[in-house]
Amino acid sequence: MANVPVPLKKLMEHFAALPGVGRKSAQRLAFFVLDMPEEQAKDFAESILEAKKSIHNCKVCQNLTDKEVCDICASPQRDDSVICVVENPRDVMAFERLQEFNGKYHVLHGLISPLDGVGPDQIRIKELLLRLQQTDVQEIIMATNPTIEGEATAMYISKLLKPLGIRVTRLAFGIPVGSELEYADNSTLNKALENRVTM
Amino acid sequence: MANVPVPLKKLMEHFAALPGVGRKSAQRLAFFVLDMPEEQAKDFAESILEAKKSIHNCKVCQNLTDKEVCDICASPQRDDSVICVVENPRDVMAFERLQEFNGKYHVLHGLISPLDGVGPDQIRIKELLLRLQQTDVQEIIMATNPTIEGEATAMYISKLLKPLGIRVTRLAFGIPVGSELEYADNSTLNKALENRVTM
Repeated sequence: MANVPVPLKKLMEHFAALPGVGRKSAQRLAFFVLDMPEEQAKDFAESILEAKKSIHNCKVCQNLTDKEVCDICASPQRDDSVICVVENPRDVMAFERLQEFNGKYHVLHGLISPLDGVGPDQIRIKELLLRLQQTDVQEIIMATNPTIEGEATAMYISKLLKPLGIRVTRLAFGIPVGSELEYADNSTLNKALENRVTM
Repeated sequence: MANVPVPLKKLMEHFAALPGVGRKSAQRLAFFVLDMPEEQAKDFAESILEAKKSIHNCKVCQNLTDKEVCDICASPQRDDSVICVVENPRDVMAFERLQEFNGKYHVLHGLISPLDGVGPDQIRIKELLLRLQQTDVQEIIMATNPTIEGEATAMYISKLLKPLGIRVTRLAFGIPVGSELEYADNSTLNKALENRVTM
């Protein structure tokens, strides 16, 4: 990129470093920022710094928060006795969008993956066990992804919890609502058949 | 978005305000920033402020620069006698990527568009005329987009320049290299036929 002023080039490089943003999009975004009102650009820059500074993990559920204990954990309206265990904070957001689940969460911040050198100690499993000692939990919903790592992590945790007499459940697998059977992959179709329910 | 910490929500909103970034991408980008090393996030925020503060229009060609006169205008290696007139700074970048054009540029920052209330005075035409008085220019290449506004602007400027005895040229229209004839639109095919060249 010859003859591009350095500050513009830098901004373009920062955008290009974001996931899913190619060289052309980065250029477009940088120009958009240049065209923004001064105030908005300042706000944008500050929101990066502020988010980076104030967001950390909730000390109870490990979800992201700017407080010591997150709003969900602190809410007296949420059911303490059910904990939905997810891989990352984005999964919490997905569930919260439903506005259906009224229990609490536990964010593992990763999945067990020996090939990537991630063992049970690298994810927040001990924090979950600690919670179970402190509160009376009736059910743990394992809501990790239906991948090898997600399955392995769900299995590992469910085995850990069995002796504690806590009910451990897993999200249902099956064909996605609104999809077409002919395009379903074999494993999904298999699961759907295996877990069929009486009408 | 209930139960999303405010600083994170703000960051997501700023990303979502960018062109081509939807709600899901904005979320992904915000999480990516949270996972960045502290230093990189700081750099990113600063690059926004710095670009916003230091980038302005070159006083000669109106292209973006962080200096008084941009690198292209200041370069003694570039040919002063040919000026390529474009709509915006992104078009300059497109030409510079070619590394073929060795003349100078003039950025109009818009096109004449009566429907949008943009007349000749709202774009940088008088700055171009001023340049022509000060330097000995042989050729003006009109490189505005092949749209109604681009054409109208090219026509308007060429009529202004005719009396000055400067050669005004226009980018060639035709079928794009590597494209398929059967998918070419009628106007393009028409132009390609009209402007056919002897082999």
